[in-house]
Amino acid sequence: MLLRLMHEADDAPYLAPPSRRTQTSITGIPAPSAASMPHGQIIHQEISPTLERREVLKGSRLSDTYVRLKHPEQDFFRKQAADELEAVAPAPEPRTGAERVWRRARITLFGEPLTTAQQIHERLTKVKALAVLSSDAISSVAYATEASLAILITAGLGVLHFNPWIAAAIAALMLIVGASYYQTIHAYPQGGGSYIVARSNLGDWPGLVAAAALLIDYVLTVSVSVSAGVDAIVSLNTTMLSKWAVPLGVVFIIFIMVVNLRGIRESGTIFAAPTYVFIGAFLVMIVTGIIHAALMPGGLFTPIPPHIHPFGQPLGWAPEKLSLLLVLTAFASGCSAMTGVEAISNGVPAFQAPESKNAARTLIWMIAVLVSLFLGTTYLAWRFGIEPFSGGEPTLTSQIARLLFGGSVFTNWFYYVIQFATMLILILAANTSYADFPRLASILAHDGWLPKGFSFRGNRLAFSAGIIVLTVLATLLMVVFSGNTEELINLYALGVFTAFTLSQSGMVIHWWRLRAVQSNGWQRSMVINGIGALTTGLVAIVIMITKFDRGAWIVVLLVPLLVVMFRGISRHYRVVAQQITQLDTLPAAAMRHQALAPISRMDRVAERTLGYARSLGLPVTVVHVTTEQEDDGNFREAFHRWAHEVEIAERGKSWGGRPPAPIPQLVVIRSPYRSLVGPFLEYVRQRRRAYPDGIVTVFLPEYVPAHLWERALHNETALRLKLALYSMRGVVVTNVPYHLGRDEEPESEVELQRRRQRRRPVITDDEEAPAAE
Amino acid sequence: MLLRLMHEADDAPYLAPPSRRTQTSITGIPAPSAASMPHGQIIHQEISPTLERREVLKGSRLSDTYVRLKHPEQDFFRKQAADELEAVAPAPEPRTGAERVWRRARITLFGEPLTTAQQIHERLTKVKALAVLSSDAISSVAYATEASLAILITAGLGVLHFNPWIAAAIAALMLIVGASYYQTIHAYPQGGGSYIVARSNLGDWPGLVAAAALLIDYVLTVSVSVSAGVDAIVSLNTTMLSKWAVPLGVVFIIFIMVVNLRGIRESGTIFAAPTYVFIGAFLVMIVTGIIHAALMPGGLFTPIPPHIHPFGQPLGWAPEKLSLLLVLTAFASGCSAMTGVEAISNGVPAFQAPESKNAARTLIWMIAVLVSLFLGTTYLAWRFGIEPFSGGEPTLTSQIARLLFGGSVFTNWFYYVIQFATMLILILAANTSYADFPRLASILAHDGWLPKGFSFRGNRLAFSAGIIVLTVLATLLMVVFSGNTEELINLYALGVFTAFTLSQSGMVIHWWRLRAVQSNGWQRSMVINGIGALTTGLVAIVIMITKFDRGAWIVVLLVPLLVVMFRGISRHYRVVAQQITQLDTLPAAAMRHQALAPISRMDRVAERTLGYARSLGLPVTVVHVTTEQEDDGNFREAFHRWAHEVEIAERGKSWGGRPPAPIPQLVVIRSPYRSLVGPFLEYVRQRRRAYPDGIVTVFLPEYVPAHLWERALHNETALRLKLALYSMRGVVVTNVPYHLGRDEEPESEVELQRRRQRRRPVITDDEEAPAAE
Repeated sequence: MLLRLMHEADDAPYLAPPSRRTQTSITGIPAPSAASMPHGQIIHQEISPTLERREVLKGSRLSDTYVRLKHPEQDFFRKQAADELEAVAPAPEPRTGAERVWRRARITLFGEPLTTAQQIHERLTKVKALAVLSSDAISSVAYATEASLAILITAGLGVLHFNPWIAAAIAALMLIVGASYYQTIHAYPQGGGSYIVARSNLGDWPGLVAAAALLIDYVLTVSVSVSAGVDAIVSLNTTMLSKWAVPLGVVFIIFIMVVNLRGIRESGTIFAAPTYVFIGAFLVMIVTGIIHAALMPGGLFTPIPPHIHPFGQPLGWAPEKLSLLLVLTAFASGCSAMTGVEAISNGVPAFQAPESKNAARTLIWMIAVLVSLFLGTTYLAWRFGIEPFSGGEPTLTSQIARLLFGGSVFTNWFYYVIQFATMLILILAANTSYADFPRLASILAHDGWLPKGFSFRGNRLAFSAGIIVLTVLATLLMVVFSGNTEELINLYALGVFTAFTLSQSGMVIHWWRLRAVQSNGWQRSMVINGIGALTTGLVAIVIMITKFDRGAWIVVLLVPLLVVMFRGISRHYRVVAQQITQLDTLPAAAMRHQALAPISRMDRVAERTLGYARSLGLPVTVVHVTTEQEDDGNFREAFHRWAHEVEIAERGKSWGGRPPAPIPQLVVIRSPYRSLVGPFLEYVRQRRRAYPDGIVTVFLPEYVPAHLWERALHNETALRLKLALYSMRGVVVTNVPYHLGRDEEPESEVELQRRRQRRRPVITDDEEAPAAE
Repeated sequence: MLLRLMHEADDAPYLAPPSRRTQTSITGIPAPSAASMPHGQIIHQEISPTLERREVLKGSRLSDTYVRLKHPEQDFFRKQAADELEAVAPAPEPRTGAERVWRRARITLFGEPLTTAQQIHERLTKVKALAVLSSDAISSVAYATEASLAILITAGLGVLHFNPWIAAAIAALMLIVGASYYQTIHAYPQGGGSYIVARSNLGDWPGLVAAAALLIDYVLTVSVSVSAGVDAIVSLNTTMLSKWAVPLGVVFIIFIMVVNLRGIRESGTIFAAPTYVFIGAFLVMIVTGIIHAALMPGGLFTPIPPHIHPFGQPLGWAPEKLSLLLVLTAFASGCSAMTGVEAISNGVPAFQAPESKNAARTLIWMIAVLVSLFLGTTYLAWRFGIEPFSGGEPTLTSQIARLLFGGSVFTNWFYYVIQFATMLILILAANTSYADFPRLASILAHDGWLPKGFSFRGNRLAFSAGIIVLTVLATLLMVVFSGNTEELINLYALGVFTAFTLSQSGMVIHWWRLRAVQSNGWQRSMVINGIGALTTGLVAIVIMITKFDRGAWIVVLLVPLLVVMFRGISRHYRVVAQQITQLDTLPAAAMRHQALAPISRMDRVAERTLGYARSLGLPVTVVHVTTEQEDDGNFREAFHRWAHEVEIAERGKSWGGRPPAPIPQLVVIRSPYRSLVGPFLEYVRQRRRAYPDGIVTVFLPEYVPAHLWERALHNETALRLKLALYSMRGVVVTNVPYHLGRDEEPESEVELQRRRQRRRPVITDDEEAPAAE
């Protein structure tokens, strides 16, 4: 129809050239000034794909015809090229009050939408980078010592003095891993996440295993950090706060989610503070503790909870319960201190130039801080004979801080500083997962291993899907484990060390491949990464064995499941791409159509549907499925009366060269089992079988009420039909809506249609002569 | 297309008359025998609305043409008239394994589907009717006395001796209400439910209030009866079973639901037993109790639970706590014994002839049984000084029964008989609500007060929607109130008495109206119903006041809400009917079409969508919304290459008289805010604004994967578009699916299309000459 009109317009005598750009330009002979615009009747109008409207108007004299060009409304689209528009907003201005409120709420919560061009790649100074990238690693000091002690204590209090040895082993491990990543930073200045390093050096499978392990780990980082952060707060007043632990944790997670959906661009500046406060406060605490321990070896402090052993008291020894397995288990728990060490090597591109060098320096600082704080905390806990509470509250560090600062009114405030700094850095650590998880998911989605949705950036440029999935999973873990940090840690670390191992092994291969290019130095690098890979691999095995029955089996089960899922998704996308990207370029008009319309009652909704179908030139079969016997006659009568009236109304008319579609045919299907959907589906199937190469179009009449609540009262059958027809091959479903009582568009289609009918004779169409009216 | 083919067929020389009914009939000259069927090529075929296929075949000689008629496959449709088919099954035979399993499971659980004609209207004898229709009323004996005592005991043990007076008042009430309904039975032999009586005599509003009260009451009947039934079982062993009370209740409710979805047709026969066992057992218990009480007035039994007072001990008196309000509250609780009294007058048409007389007799019997059992139980509880347990377990009747029969090994079995009979009759009582609620809902739906869905009969002729809604609500109540019968009873009875009052008031008007016709007797009848109305109205007020803060406020709130909802639904249906039933009979072909297709990638899915749209003769605008800047060029290039190829392929062809649709035009919309849906919607809106009286058809390409799980990986944007476009006026959405990899239909559309292309030249179409190939 549009084409025909355009064709006519081309024939019209006074035509504006289509390239005019004025908002409303009039061209014609006699050329009128802007003031003397013709106000004649619009003979016809047309709209181009780029929304320019062209109206042909009748002038004051009989022979005059004018053409008016209208450009699209500039409030939303801006024309960029002959066939291109640009949207100046994510969505048009809201029209109804509810839409406005909803939009206002969204903007308040998440901020104004950002364009892709507004993306900022902030470069981090070393000071900021240490704060942002190492909060995950450093914050683990707050729970790692305690996690290790919580295992040892099961063999009796006396065993706790073993802990410093375990801590020393973990510190050595930190140095080894640090040295390994020092190399990765230099080798992968574009960012060497475990997935990338493992995949590029070892292949798809190891890469995917690393990715799966990391995804699990990021979820656990959120759960563990938030639950440890909550522990720090709950420790302030255990009796009052402990029952609020889980709700508080969920609130924290949702808060972090909202912040991340807003997209944090001030990350460096704002988030530097808690990390340095935490480092400072812990250093002060450790130094104070060491001084106290050195000066006064004999029972200065009165422990606040009654069952904490006053230090200096000889510790018991319970050799019969201590086993190698237990020590290894405690070691495995302590290894949770190492989570997040890889963050700097992932984030090399975010550093100021020279990126690698700055990143390497920052790594060294991070390892130094981590080792000092971890060893310091462990020493104090050992020296003061502090034992962990089951349930984790009050925390070990809270006990130490209260012991050191809680006794005096002058120092008590510092206890609060420590607790709040602990909470903040832990929430910051959870926040780093909110950067890492969505980014890794988007990389995986981009590589086709995850659904495409993970690679879409939302209104605020954040990877919304990843952020939401992470929130749901972390909250689930939080609730299932009742926010118990100790139990969550049992699942932790296995993923990290798996990723460490794969990443370091990848680096070994990397150096081996480079041996031709880089003749000297590759051996040393390979040895360092080799030691890293061996050590972390060994630790991963230790963690898996010792923690298997405490929860690590979940991770052992999940990693292969995830890998299988990745590959399944990837295979699916590849198969689909193979099958659908190759075009056929078939002449389309050769399709054989059958048109069906399930009609339950001859009303305006039905009439509109049939009118629409017929206006496409299709001969429609009306399918009336009836459950009651007595209704048949009524419907048949109503249908034939309508058909007869339409026939009379159309007699003798011709429709602009297009053959009029025949009056629909009727078939009544009696359904004695009262099922409406089943018989109709089977009818469609049998009609399709007649021409297996054709297309059956089902025109579904749908009454659309003005209010949402009213929708429950209509279209239930239409919805079920739609769902069932969706999976039928060669069946196109066309929803023909009939709207009623909407305020913005007061005229019903039928009324407008009728008005247009009245206007019609003005068009000088040689086929539709005015005489016909 | 179909029409054209039919037209050609009519021109074909050797045509079978369309009335032939053989499965495969061949007609033509030379007329072949069935053995010498022509195996020539099918020149073309057509299908009629009643699924007869007509194939035109080429014979062995060049000039021969045969026509073969094929009747529809008889396994599902049977032809009933020239335009009518009948479905012989509710749905076709399942095709896939999963469908078969699902169907098998459905049949096992709910039974084989039934046709409407299979509906059986069983008539009940008086004996069966008493069992079926009075189970609700009689079963309330199991909890009514206890409910009353549970209120009194709050003023101290001594107050319990007041209870017989309360019981006497309730018994008197039973007689009054019985007399009232005795009259209703005679006045409404077609069934006099409260809604019908109140509406026909007092008008819509009172009718709806009665209906709302009854619906609430039916839900409560299920919850109260099932929870009391569970109490009877739990009483067997309180310590072991009490924690299973709620799950057991839910299982019972679901069991009753399944039974009712199956449709119970054996109701009378099977369900007579528990009622009579219950009546018999309780009579035995009461008689035994009375004999024991008369013969041995001084402390024979040792009470089993330690804190039950040995009877004979003088009861304390606590006048300071006893108030009129408390007595009235206890009375209100005891009134729960009266629920279900109206069942017989609702069910008059189910009786054998003479219906009214039989029903009236049954009513007398029911009232007699009810009064005897209720007074007997109350007497025993009073005589033996039994007090209710908080929480309701063990129940009062269980205590009495154990007291009487639990002491001896020889009589102990009878205690179990009483408990199980109690449970069975209570579940039977819940079951009557499963008949009443859906029936009332279907009447309301039929009158337009509830969504139409409530009036549809399911596979087994049951009103499935009502049954499911009742189950959901009753389960919810069960869980919210933790299956506490006492607390549930506080909501109960108010609805019943409201319905009683309205129904009796309606009867008063009924008699008044009849005074001209029925000169004598109407006064007496009016007085009886008037007393009934007054009394029940008074009781309703008492219940409302005394129970308001114990939960009745929920009912007081819900009834008007439901009435408002009824009227809102009714108004909506009426407005819609007014607006859509009047037909316009517009010539349909005059619609002005605009066709849009949102295309993200030029692949086969897109190609098929565009092909489909073009085959309808519509000039399509391809709308490509892009979020990334670098993609634009690629898509534009791919599109234009495709368009060029199509143009070449179609050049010089004509499509059987129908003008070829033009090659689609392209518009690219850049969306810097990365929103896909917003800009497209606004584009549709602006296109629509150009011709407010036209129709915009949006052709949505949809890739349909073979497996359900794969659907999560596709069409997310299409779904959001569909939802948003649904509420736009004048926009038709056409879903063009592209299927891949389905086993049943192995050939893709494209392959079939191509094959058909190859076959095409055989058709001797004067416009499409074989020379074109």
